[in-house]
Amino acid sequence: MNAVRTIPVLEIFGPTVQGEGMVVGRKTMFVRTAGCDYRCSWCDSAFTWDGSAKDEIQQLSAGQIIASLDELAGDAYDHVTISGGNPALLPQLDYFIDELHKHGKKVALETQGSRWQDWFVNIDDMTISPKPPSSGMETNWERLDGIVSKLVEHGSHFCLKVVVFDDADLAYAKLVHQRYAGVQFYVQAGNGNLTEQEPARMLPYLLERYEWLIELTMADSQLNAVFVLPQLHTWVWGNKKGV
Amino acid sequence: MNAVRTIPVLEIFGPTVQGEGMVVGRKTMFVRTAGCDYRCSWCDSAFTWDGSAKDEIQQLSAGQIIASLDELAGDAYDHVTISGGNPALLPQLDYFIDELHKHGKKVALETQGSRWQDWFVNIDDMTISPKPPSSGMETNWERLDGIVSKLVEHGSHFCLKVVVFDDADLAYAKLVHQRYAGVQFYVQAGNGNLTEQEPARMLPYLLERYEWLIELTMADSQLNAVFVLPQLHTWVWGNKKGV
Repeated sequence: MNAVRTIPVLEIFGPTVQGEGMVVGRKTMFVRTAGCDYRCSWCDSAFTWDGSAKDEIQQLSAGQIIASLDELAGDAYDHVTISGGNPALLPQLDYFIDELHKHGKKVALETQGSRWQDWFVNIDDMTISPKPPSSGMETNWERLDGIVSKLVEHGSHFCLKVVVFDDADLAYAKLVHQRYAGVQFYVQAGNGNLTEQEPARMLPYLLERYEWLIELTMADSQLNAVFVLPQLHTWVWGNKKGV
Repeated sequence: MNAVRTIPVLEIFGPTVQGEGMVVGRKTMFVRTAGCDYRCSWCDSAFTWDGSAKDEIQQLSAGQIIASLDELAGDAYDHVTISGGNPALLPQLDYFIDELHKHGKKVALETQGSRWQDWFVNIDDMTISPKPPSSGMETNWERLDGIVSKLVEHGSHFCLKVVVFDDADLAYAKLVHQRYAGVQFYVQAGNGNLTEQEPARMLPYLLERYEWLIELTMADSQLNAVFVLPQLHTWVWGNKKGV
């Protein structure tokens, strides 16, 4: 059934480096799906849900996406990151993920943890990124509990990642870390400068934000087993799309 | 026996973020040991072996080092990175590592893979960083084979990391990656600017070097399952010591 259901795609690009989280630096391809159940105030991919790119959405089969990936990268890739939007809205990704595996590719997924899909257990590198207060979203803790439990039970390679813009976000990050102790945990300095296209002009801001987050986390004994990272790709490419 | 053998220490600092490799971003403390069997042309810690800091070497017991770590960080750390120099020259680290574990701390180690120590199997996050041609050093492949085999056999959490300055280094990195296929593999843009103390003045250079390495690796189908990273701490702090 899901072999014939198409996937709404907004971007296919790479190879490039993963700029965030548990597999930061990993050579990967990106497939960005359209549609999200969230409306984060600072979303860096708001075009996936705000209607501004609705004419650019392509309904593609798994085979068509893989053909695009192969066309872009030839045999110079073995890893595909599915991002959004929220790809967890799409049950039909199961077939695409299976096909990628059949083609010898590993698969990473980025999602906020608001929805479960049974194909989560087939993901090789899974990032669950619940959204802090500054996003304007509310976390459904019961649902997040269920998702984390199932991934732990399955022995999935996954992490939790919280983007932090302010003190309230950091307090939220601590709640997440305490609630899911033992799960690999990342905090990431938020990017509140989404319009600047010149990386060199963004860097002082991004550095300041990263140092701010380092300073707070280093001093805090409730945040010991943590990873503190910037969005590496914004340091290199600013807000440029498709890299 | 090793409980009473002291350790030659040059720096104890933190908490800070690990700036490199497999656990990049991890909150950690650093203990830098003195002495190295290598003399890499671009070593960023040459004071550990070139005699310039020989009067600063402290011979410390495991208990004294842990007291220093506790004094610096209180209870705000759970991870200690032992770096050098080459800590693998020091058999007496076994007792220190055991003591850290007894204190509930995880332990990371950075070494070039020129010597084996039986305590390697007790390290939680192990980085083996063989040195490319630009270092002026020669790799003992037989010895490296033995070290990698034992770590694989033991199921250690470890990675291989190669610093890359030029095309010859990248060719060497490919050899390492092919020889130890299946081992998590990092390439890292080399820092050839070891004197600049002002991070803002280093950034354009570091960015250029990172982009250069990204460009080469992304296009190369012999470097697919790779992680490409900068030295994150140099982006934030330049060549400053003790951060």
